[in-house]
Amino acid sequence: MIIAPVFDKESNKPLYIQLYEYIKKEITSGTLKPDLKLPSIREASSTLNLSKTTIENAYNQLVAEGYIDNIPKRGYFVCDLSEYNFDVELSHKQTIIHHDEIEYINDGVDEGSFDISIWRRLYNKVISDPKTNIYNSCSVQGENFLREEISNFVNTMRGGHTDPRQVIVGAGVQYLLGILIGILRDDYNTVAVEKPGFNKAEFVFEDYNFNIRHIAVTNSGFPVSKLWKSDAQVIYISPSHQYPLGTIMPVNKRMELLDWAYKKNGIIIEDDYDGIVRFGGMPIPSLQGLDKNDCVVYLGSFSKILLPSLRISYMVIPKRLLPKYNKIKNRYTQSTSKIDQLVLAHFMNEGYMVKHLRRIKRIYRRKNSSLTESFKNTFKERLKIISADSGLHIVCSAKTGKDLERIKSDAKKNKIHLNIIHKTNNKLIFSLNYSGINSEKTQEFTCLLEKIIFQ
Amino acid sequence: MIIAPVFDKESNKPLYIQLYEYIKKEITSGTLKPDLKLPSIREASSTLNLSKTTIENAYNQLVAEGYIDNIPKRGYFVCDLSEYNFDVELSHKQTIIHHDEIEYINDGVDEGSFDISIWRRLYNKVISDPKTNIYNSCSVQGENFLREEISNFVNTMRGGHTDPRQVIVGAGVQYLLGILIGILRDDYNTVAVEKPGFNKAEFVFEDYNFNIRHIAVTNSGFPVSKLWKSDAQVIYISPSHQYPLGTIMPVNKRMELLDWAYKKNGIIIEDDYDGIVRFGGMPIPSLQGLDKNDCVVYLGSFSKILLPSLRISYMVIPKRLLPKYNKIKNRYTQSTSKIDQLVLAHFMNEGYMVKHLRRIKRIYRRKNSSLTESFKNTFKERLKIISADSGLHIVCSAKTGKDLERIKSDAKKNKIHLNIIHKTNNKLIFSLNYSGINSEKTQEFTCLLEKIIFQ
Repeated sequence: MIIAPVFDKESNKPLYIQLYEYIKKEITSGTLKPDLKLPSIREASSTLNLSKTTIENAYNQLVAEGYIDNIPKRGYFVCDLSEYNFDVELSHKQTIIHHDEIEYINDGVDEGSFDISIWRRLYNKVISDPKTNIYNSCSVQGENFLREEISNFVNTMRGGHTDPRQVIVGAGVQYLLGILIGILRDDYNTVAVEKPGFNKAEFVFEDYNFNIRHIAVTNSGFPVSKLWKSDAQVIYISPSHQYPLGTIMPVNKRMELLDWAYKKNGIIIEDDYDGIVRFGGMPIPSLQGLDKNDCVVYLGSFSKILLPSLRISYMVIPKRLLPKYNKIKNRYTQSTSKIDQLVLAHFMNEGYMVKHLRRIKRIYRRKNSSLTESFKNTFKERLKIISADSGLHIVCSAKTGKDLERIKSDAKKNKIHLNIIHKTNNKLIFSLNYSGINSEKTQEFTCLLEKIIFQ
Repeated sequence: MIIAPVFDKESNKPLYIQLYEYIKKEITSGTLKPDLKLPSIREASSTLNLSKTTIENAYNQLVAEGYIDNIPKRGYFVCDLSEYNFDVELSHKQTIIHHDEIEYINDGVDEGSFDISIWRRLYNKVISDPKTNIYNSCSVQGENFLREEISNFVNTMRGGHTDPRQVIVGAGVQYLLGILIGILRDDYNTVAVEKPGFNKAEFVFEDYNFNIRHIAVTNSGFPVSKLWKSDAQVIYISPSHQYPLGTIMPVNKRMELLDWAYKKNGIIIEDDYDGIVRFGGMPIPSLQGLDKNDCVVYLGSFSKILLPSLRISYMVIPKRLLPKYNKIKNRYTQSTSKIDQLVLAHFMNEGYMVKHLRRIKRIYRRKNSSLTESFKNTFKERLKIISADSGLHIVCSAKTGKDLERIKSDAKKNKIHLNIIHKTNNKLIFSLNYSGINSEKTQEFTCLLEKIIFQ
């Protein structure tokens, strides 16, 4: 008898699977030789005291996977797999090095800023609503309802001139940039970015083999004249609140920039990542709203203003890029959950977003001033706050001779996210998110920072 | 008096914004000339009968945006913007062409297959649990809990050998491929893909400037010999259920493929998009589980087996790619909602996924056989079912002389998604998703298909 499996009758595993596994092992280990004829179903059934169906199921699975052949009228034969080594022992023994990710205490959003109960209620409504059609795939461009709400939002809150048909929804600015590059790549291959700027955007262009031109942002802001001299026809920029320096681009520069784009037949990518949060007055209206030559791509995200754990961003493309987008849109799948999209659309439509924004502005204004106050009292002449009047980070300049690498490692150790902008022998310029700092721990945070930067 | 605004006291707009808008308009229209001195705050306050704060707020906003300058000890002056044209009239009048997306009746998943109440309960639990920390950003690689569950899932359900540290979570296979290309691009630049195959994966490689080599899948499956002759060192393949032809790669070919990768120092990307759904027996174990040389990347998704409206996919990378991944991982942001990730992890951990899979297998087996039955009865000799024993689509060959373009447009008109694989004068080979077809409408669907293909 060539097959003599030992069955575990107590096991949850069906007998046919046990039999299949047994025969497979006998074949891959070389015990059952190539071209050997297996007992017929009837024969095996009577010897092993199993139903014919059990034998048949096991044999069928082995046939489907190619371990045995079923030759009509002749029976089942072991396939020739002798040249392959099925040893499960991994020949490359790799040790896995895993770096645990740090959750920084100053990143994220304020814990009291978000009303979970409203979101939960809308989620329950949306997922239970047959009209949501959770069983079908997401719209490639984004759900109509959400695109309408976003278009309204950009027009009323950011002074934009947009139409819902220009809005593309996606899971993060990086994914959306990938689509934008798909639209632009036939006509453009060089992009200018601000230095310092938002690296994660630059990485995307780099990955798609765009040439990158760095344009240094100076004390007086972004030098449009340098852009004229560069060969870039695309610029990635954050005019309402430069990342990370926090400067606001004045209207004459905005007009110059639009003029550049018009004359160069170029594209301006306006990253408005936190332009809506401003304490000194109203938010600065977007560049998109000033553009009359249809050359601004507007990027927005709900990560900073709503929740970073949801991944919903959007991009408003100029009308003239729509024909190209419509041609290629089906190359891409939608990356944001349809349910989340519709929950957000309801959240906006029912007025919760406006209320939420009012609330976070209040919260962050308080956080911002208590932190800057605490900095002034503690650091005195050692630290100067360069920019703090808008957005969710502040920019500081500190007089310190401490070694940069030690500053970095001390920050990491204390789970503080410091974005180093510039370091000389005795000066450190950095930006610092404050949105995640617990407002009761401002003083504690300041003391930590003192240790990191000065000691 | 040079400023004489008319205020709308009934409006919701604060007076300082009305004043700001008025002055801005007077400047951009050229009424207020460059270098003109505005009335001082005190002066304006008394003339306009507004509080000093209102005037100050309006002036400050105009200063921030760069419409006026505040010169210390001299006052507020209009900036020179005369060279710019602020006309709101758009010079490029673009008509927006918008293509509405079609929701195909045969795509998606079965409407009864998903237990909304369980998902909703888990969602409410996760979003309310402080440990979820919705206020902080998502782990770049994916939440630990979900990566553990996915690793278990691949190991037990797909015969894999994976460790959670190899798992990367993302919103769709396309996004994950972008990350994979980031890992591979320094060492590889040519990828082989099956023809016919999954175009949306090919597009990603194309976008990143990879050379694409098409390898024709024949009746006897994927020809590994052709791969040897090609200069590709990376292959994108769906061995458990070839897309779209539905063939299963037998074990000898799998071993050959693994051998190829080992000898060429190559990478096999195994797309296991619906390998878990098989009716003839157990699912075919993954290639990843047979790989002992650490050269298989495994791609899986919950779109087909759970819900297409959620966007959760994952990639298991070989251990030897981990050092490179760890180096570049922070270039990318996580694209899947942290909340959804944790809900899914609970869904798997509490045993709902296993139950769900059992249920959908039952549902789809029934759908599959009632549809193929209906096809046989209606089409008789005109249509042959080539493959239907696993996955959520069937492959058919039909004898028809109808023009291909007419077939395509008729299918679109009737919202049926036909994936045309091959068309000659009188033969049409196509694959057809059936997961979304309402089981009570099988006959109706068959009649529609008859019209589309034959009439």
